[in-house]
Amino acid sequence: MVGAETILRTLMNSGVDVCFANPGTSEMQFVAAVDRVPGMRPVLGLFEGVVAGAADGYARMADKPAATLFHLGPGLANGLANLHNAMRARSPIVNLVGDHATYHRPYASPLASDVAAYARPVSGWLRDNAEGRMLGADTRAAIAAAWEPPGQIATLLVPADCSWNPGGEPGAPVQRPSPRPAAPEGLERAIRALRAGERCLFLINGHSLRAEGLHLASRLAGHTGARFMADTFTARMERGAGLPVLQRFPRYPEQGVELLDGFDHLFLIETTPPVAFFAYPDQPSWLTPEHCLLHTLVEPGEDAVGALQALCEALNVPANAGRTAELSVPEPGTGALDPDSIAQTVASVLPEGAIVADEAITSRGSLPGMTAGCPTHDWLSLTGGALGQSLSAAAGAAIACPDRPVFCLQADGAGMYAPQALWTMVREGLNVTVLIYANRSYKILHNEWARLNLGQVGESARKLLDIGEPDLNWSHIARGMGMPAAQVTDAESLHRQLRTALEEPGPHLIEAIM
Amino acid sequence: MVGAETILRTLMNSGVDVCFANPGTSEMQFVAAVDRVPGMRPVLGLFEGVVAGAADGYARMADKPAATLFHLGPGLANGLANLHNAMRARSPIVNLVGDHATYHRPYASPLASDVAAYARPVSGWLRDNAEGRMLGADTRAAIAAAWEPPGQIATLLVPADCSWNPGGEPGAPVQRPSPRPAAPEGLERAIRALRAGERCLFLINGHSLRAEGLHLASRLAGHTGARFMADTFTARMERGAGLPVLQRFPRYPEQGVELLDGFDHLFLIETTPPVAFFAYPDQPSWLTPEHCLLHTLVEPGEDAVGALQALCEALNVPANAGRTAELSVPEPGTGALDPDSIAQTVASVLPEGAIVADEAITSRGSLPGMTAGCPTHDWLSLTGGALGQSLSAAAGAAIACPDRPVFCLQADGAGMYAPQALWTMVREGLNVTVLIYANRSYKILHNEWARLNLGQVGESARKLLDIGEPDLNWSHIARGMGMPAAQVTDAESLHRQLRTALEEPGPHLIEAIM
Repeated sequence: MVGAETILRTLMNSGVDVCFANPGTSEMQFVAAVDRVPGMRPVLGLFEGVVAGAADGYARMADKPAATLFHLGPGLANGLANLHNAMRARSPIVNLVGDHATYHRPYASPLASDVAAYARPVSGWLRDNAEGRMLGADTRAAIAAAWEPPGQIATLLVPADCSWNPGGEPGAPVQRPSPRPAAPEGLERAIRALRAGERCLFLINGHSLRAEGLHLASRLAGHTGARFMADTFTARMERGAGLPVLQRFPRYPEQGVELLDGFDHLFLIETTPPVAFFAYPDQPSWLTPEHCLLHTLVEPGEDAVGALQALCEALNVPANAGRTAELSVPEPGTGALDPDSIAQTVASVLPEGAIVADEAITSRGSLPGMTAGCPTHDWLSLTGGALGQSLSAAAGAAIACPDRPVFCLQADGAGMYAPQALWTMVREGLNVTVLIYANRSYKILHNEWARLNLGQVGESARKLLDIGEPDLNWSHIARGMGMPAAQVTDAESLHRQLRTALEEPGPHLIEAIM
Repeated sequence: MVGAETILRTLMNSGVDVCFANPGTSEMQFVAAVDRVPGMRPVLGLFEGVVAGAADGYARMADKPAATLFHLGPGLANGLANLHNAMRARSPIVNLVGDHATYHRPYASPLASDVAAYARPVSGWLRDNAEGRMLGADTRAAIAAAWEPPGQIATLLVPADCSWNPGGEPGAPVQRPSPRPAAPEGLERAIRALRAGERCLFLINGHSLRAEGLHLASRLAGHTGARFMADTFTARMERGAGLPVLQRFPRYPEQGVELLDGFDHLFLIETTPPVAFFAYPDQPSWLTPEHCLLHTLVEPGEDAVGALQALCEALNVPANAGRTAELSVPEPGTGALDPDSIAQTVASVLPEGAIVADEAITSRGSLPGMTAGCPTHDWLSLTGGALGQSLSAAAGAAIACPDRPVFCLQADGAGMYAPQALWTMVREGLNVTVLIYANRSYKILHNEWARLNLGQVGESARKLLDIGEPDLNWSHIARGMGMPAAQVTDAESLHRQLRTALEEPGPHLIEAIM
């Protein structure tokens, strides 16, 4: 068994049976080994950003790692932006990177590079396999490291000769890990503060944003008057009718400061202290005022549900203290397309079990409210701020959950960082409905321009802020990758196209011209 | 004057008047400053790979650096693969990367990253500007470092507060630098070996691949019987009628070993010792046999023309000792499209002064021979092996040389790593003819599979080697970015479309279905 096969069999032993890949010459042994390892599903991305983004989306929905396969330093480099997003989402990924053969590394061949240097910024765990017979153990260690709560990117560099030489026995299965219990000190402080009736905000991320955690949080809020909020950007949140509605922490620093001013305590659950997304002149980076005491209740990777349960028990919170959203589905929007009519129309069709991958600044505003009472669904956000993630994440989510409809809400500008994901959706026959918010501009940059009081946009600046001239035609781009596509300019047509996309199998793209 | 303006004015002072950019919030001050600095041309790329690849193509043709502008670590990461290619091409680039404000860096905001760690692998020079008032001096140092022969990537990290705070006086102009003279020892060795009639191979890259160096090399070859070859991949080579024909060093290691076996001396001119591109089992990485003595005649960044002139003088080489290609333009090809009929048809239309950016494995074979007698042109190759470069490099070359027609010979698989370059070509109205070799497969990987004796390609492996199912339709993709496009399936139609593309202004895409 050559080393590449040892790796693949070790992955299969632990249930890691999807490999998002963009291989090159140094990974040919992997490609050949895939034929010999039944059950391993290779998914090709035409660009490495798709590989990384899909592995992220997959991990968020499958609750287990996929493997990736990159070609040398430059191949990995193309995946780094979406690996950054995955790192911020704490997505477990077994990140395999082929390198030149060990004896070839010292030479200045065209593709030679310091692969570890490329990998380090995004990898919580990094190992360079320079001995083929250790591949079973190394791969097993990578799986365990990736999966260890809260999840991280574990990168294994595999020199080509380690892939083609004998690899030895595959590593034993890694058992699905459990989160560690939270430290009791945080719990005691929370109990004291809540009992004393002090003003408490609980900021939540991670696994506590699933139904069980949300219900516990809602009961605590109802019983104690404490406030619970989700982080501004979250890897995955369960939402919809029958679930508590959790508002998100505001995006801009002045809003965060104003909010926090009203609290005596800020308790962190699977997250870090809130800071500004960007710095602005005369705005703080750190948002928590001195009078608001900061406590870590649950570290990322600890058992948030257990901690919330313990709080409920200690405070005798009744089972029915929480509030949940009623089923409330709006009628489709009408007339011209704008963020509100699009939000209303999307909410009108969102089916039970939908997964929404959201990367459209335009989709904020009324969309969360419109969809709060829809049938239950999962919402995936852009966690790391690196644009060009959602198309790929949607593809990965659809592979993790083949029976669930996936929606991708994608801004036109952001989508152009990795449009190649459309091809993978077609290749794999994924049930993804891609909705492009086509405003032909970097809307986010116009917002930031205004926040920075930069005055009127001149002709040269406009060349960097607008993406018209020429207008993108996403329908053509989609057809170029084999995907059925339609352009719509009113809400009625959008509704019709959404219905069609949901009824027909396979991916569809709808370009909403705003 | 804010820091961003100080930077732009320093660039302008040294004639760096093109900035390929993909800005974000932390670079808004640059965007605003562009309006205040007349003459600075901002060129937007919708994906950072385009920014990097275009800066590379620009530098190769303009013989001076362009500036780039990237948004934080993940934005830079998206540009790294093409920066790797630019590094291998020794292209001078002033690589500006916005970072969070200095005081915001310590916080774990979503886009926070170690920008310097991302930049280091591709940067010959790296400085973190943490003091706005040094921006003039720092930018000037970056220009000087980038431009210093043989050229390199000089990265300046610019925290957002340095951009928005006062930046002080712009830096003084950097004068176009001259190459250093080569050390006399190499010259003396070459003279001795040539006089002794020993078998000498001169391997050339860099600036000696322009007309003057080529003529000198050809005279030396004609007079002494020594052999001159170009590296397998070169940043830029002048070719065509009236110029000497220089063959390239073979790509595969066994061919290189066989070639070198016939020489007593290998002299390097602006290059490094030949090594295998990839390692293969039972193939050497190092290609020069022990009996062939290795000498550095001209280091990269040294004056190769001066060294070749000195050789000619020392050996009394007559002015007419060289041989040059006769003007010889083939008739257009006929019938079905294959690499030969495409090569013949391209050669039949290649106009005087054309620039060819070549990233199609399929385009090798007969293409160099077919075009050797065409009107003079420049040939740009993929120097670093990271796919997805040529569309962007073609865009940059067209901006550097607005009066010259640019051809981009692009494989369909490789083109999908950065197809967004098409949009920039349309936005800027560039005279680029893009020829897509549509073989619907990673041809290079099929070749490598065969070299590795991996047997028959199974069903799973095929999913990673073929890019059909669905077939890409590059004509649709091009139209999606506003570019006129045509599909052709025979040489006559290809010829017609090439003529049309050359006659009409602006970019065109021709998809050659093979």
